[in-house]
Amino acid sequence: MTPSVPAPSATTPSAAGPADLLITGCTALVHDEHEEIAFVEDASIVVRGGVIEAVTREARLPDAALRIDARGQVAMPGLINCHTHTPMVALRGIAEDLPAEEWFNDFIWPIESNLTERDVELGARLACAEMIRGGVTCFADHYFSMDAVAAVVSESGLRAHLGEAFFSSQGAEGREKSLEFALRQRGGAGGRITTALAPHAPYTVNAADLAATAALAREHGLPVHLHAAESRGQTDTSLARYGRTPIEILQRAGLLDNEPGLLIAHGTGIIERDLPVLAGASGPVAVATAPRGYLKFAWGPTPVRALREIGVPVGLATDGAASNNSLDVWESMALTSLVQKSTEGDPRWLTSRQALHHATLQSARAVGLGERIGSLAPGRRADIVLVDLSGPHTQPVHDLAATLVHSARSGDVTTTIVDGRVLMRDRELLTLDLPATVAELGERLPSLVDRGHGRRIQEYDT
Amino acid sequence: MTPSVPAPSATTPSAAGPADLLITGCTALVHDEHEEIAFVEDASIVVRGGVIEAVTREARLPDAALRIDARGQVAMPGLINCHTHTPMVALRGIAEDLPAEEWFNDFIWPIESNLTERDVELGARLACAEMIRGGVTCFADHYFSMDAVAAVVSESGLRAHLGEAFFSSQGAEGREKSLEFALRQRGGAGGRITTALAPHAPYTVNAADLAATAALAREHGLPVHLHAAESRGQTDTSLARYGRTPIEILQRAGLLDNEPGLLIAHGTGIIERDLPVLAGASGPVAVATAPRGYLKFAWGPTPVRALREIGVPVGLATDGAASNNSLDVWESMALTSLVQKSTEGDPRWLTSRQALHHATLQSARAVGLGERIGSLAPGRRADIVLVDLSGPHTQPVHDLAATLVHSARSGDVTTTIVDGRVLMRDRELLTLDLPATVAELGERLPSLVDRGHGRRIQEYDT
Repeated sequence: MTPSVPAPSATTPSAAGPADLLITGCTALVHDEHEEIAFVEDASIVVRGGVIEAVTREARLPDAALRIDARGQVAMPGLINCHTHTPMVALRGIAEDLPAEEWFNDFIWPIESNLTERDVELGARLACAEMIRGGVTCFADHYFSMDAVAAVVSESGLRAHLGEAFFSSQGAEGREKSLEFALRQRGGAGGRITTALAPHAPYTVNAADLAATAALAREHGLPVHLHAAESRGQTDTSLARYGRTPIEILQRAGLLDNEPGLLIAHGTGIIERDLPVLAGASGPVAVATAPRGYLKFAWGPTPVRALREIGVPVGLATDGAASNNSLDVWESMALTSLVQKSTEGDPRWLTSRQALHHATLQSARAVGLGERIGSLAPGRRADIVLVDLSGPHTQPVHDLAATLVHSARSGDVTTTIVDGRVLMRDRELLTLDLPATVAELGERLPSLVDRGHGRRIQEYDT
Repeated sequence: MTPSVPAPSATTPSAAGPADLLITGCTALVHDEHEEIAFVEDASIVVRGGVIEAVTREARLPDAALRIDARGQVAMPGLINCHTHTPMVALRGIAEDLPAEEWFNDFIWPIESNLTERDVELGARLACAEMIRGGVTCFADHYFSMDAVAAVVSESGLRAHLGEAFFSSQGAEGREKSLEFALRQRGGAGGRITTALAPHAPYTVNAADLAATAALAREHGLPVHLHAAESRGQTDTSLARYGRTPIEILQRAGLLDNEPGLLIAHGTGIIERDLPVLAGASGPVAVATAPRGYLKFAWGPTPVRALREIGVPVGLATDGAASNNSLDVWESMALTSLVQKSTEGDPRWLTSRQALHHATLQSARAVGLGERIGSLAPGRRADIVLVDLSGPHTQPVHDLAATLVHSARSGDVTTTIVDGRVLMRDRELLTLDLPATVAELGERLPSLVDRGHGRRIQEYDT
């Protein structure tokens, strides 16, 4: 194990009666005052009222309603999936080895015109099961019928940042529905739900509607979550059609100055001239990167290094499982490191500690929760996962950060905790009925995947 | 599940008394007469004498000494790690985020000068545990103190293709030792061990020694396994220094005409002019690709598409865990698909079925066992893994090949079988003592990783 590092977050637990949860004997991943990753060996974590009260090496610990002996395990902040479409797990594997245009137009958008609220609910439940199993404690979801997703968030115990997607093709109604959802669900599930306005993308939502979205966001104090500059092809098309990049379109719409924040999914088409535009944003802007899908679509990578240089956080994501085939944020962490080294031509870049910083604080900032989650520190919400490193593939440990990023896998997560509540323990899901979900979804698949009707919810034309 | 496909390999089991092993109720991955991947649902696999006797949908099945109910699981050929250095798991994570030159010269080669036979044995045992857990049934190993590895192969029950590595810096002694090992261990471990001559690489073994190796290989009917054209930088250096690429150096040495075969590790530095050279080889030549490490070192990819066009099999590999951080061949399969799509700029290329072909028949050919393993077909050795697809991350299944390559993970392997012997069942290792291995290796690490002596076994100068 890495030599013990005194943790800046280690404080003495209070003596105010029994805690709700006490995790003992773990190696805790913490951040020092420079946000560098550090590890506290033989640590205990005290949780009270859904909040981390202490990360401590003290021997005197409070009683607790629940104690978890985590010897041999690493405790780390739960992973955050900064951009996904949970219900799309129902379409995992339905359209393989295709360019994005065919994937959208011939498969996904025809099939999505069949989606019912029940399909969305079942897909979201399956997705939440997958994410809890993979150590994800919070996800940003951008889809339709989001009330069904919100209900599953409530049931599953996960934390989520939800937005009801809309296209300009829906007229003003789509935007109004997105606003109504965001206002009504904000603060739901005991505060675990935050919300955003969710225009689909600059290529499906026109400039006037983006500007109207920015005005609504300002009026109601809502962040915005959308796709933009997904690929270099989109940027080229945008330049040819409008003389502006997608990022410049967001700027003109006022979305870069949204005080509650803007979350941009993908950004692999962000180019040099976009950097000063992003750097000049007066609101907090972040980018979510989902590297597996970019490789699969033969898109380039998100320009993580350039974004770092201008101070834009890059959170980790999986996109939907219909393109990415999984909601494995652990894999996104490893691939972000690997792909960035490769595309920058620099093996020293994007170290394991940098990857862990993306997975923790940068991802928390991306979903607007930079002060509440993303770190095992007193006062933060108790979103914690325990990772078993006793498997042969994670031994020996010369460099714990490298072990976590490059050797461990999502399947090594044994325990997933959100707001101090245990959602999975010893790999057993405690809040969701997986077999019933898989069975009912299986019955619904034939009508869900039917494309005989010839309808599409939208046309992909970047 | 994918619609049932009649399997060309499905034959009626013989009635010759009880079988040794009967696997029932699985979906079996088979190859049709064009080597296309097909799936037989509700299949049974009959094993007798270490050999697959039948893959069948018949209801009448023989009695068997051992029956495994594999309902809900996929049976597929065990994965083959076509190039690794098993003992290097002891150095997993010791030298991170470095270019290859520093990785070799400042860490790996100084540390390897400390290696004892006991370290090699413990590392190999830990590696075999990892590979059995990850569904690997055969590996090609290229290292030192290979008698210790051979002993672990015998103990573990795995199949292996072993070579004792040598440099020209060792003089003739290295080559003689490699030959002596290859002749003595050939056919060991009940036939599960095959052997190769193992010169390190054209940049560490000179032309005369490579030619002498080719002559020994011819004389003794031995294949050759080496590193070559590992990176584009090596090829450029070779051209500058000798006016020849590493592949052309192998040709001049006679190694491309070695009738028992030549296995080239990596080949990311294979360039256009090498292709006719490889195409003109009179012996069977194959390349092992280990894509994770190439990303990490910021090397380019193995030119899989160009090699396919000239009929050179490309097997999957992990290299050693000191650079790759894992021996996860499942990940190599997924990354080969993803990286190839990305670098070729073609999402239609390297489909999941192609990836499975690399993982099965091409990998078997790469290690010289193309007629014995790599397919669930009558007469092949019974090297079989069972994969559980009931996890949320592998549901639903619209395209079973995609589920296997892009959604499943090595941790979904529940059962690993070699020569009909069960090495892992329900994720429990049956042949190796993992905790004892980890404990003893841990005690030895401080002296193993000491670099204070200033020695190196070799200098990296491409």
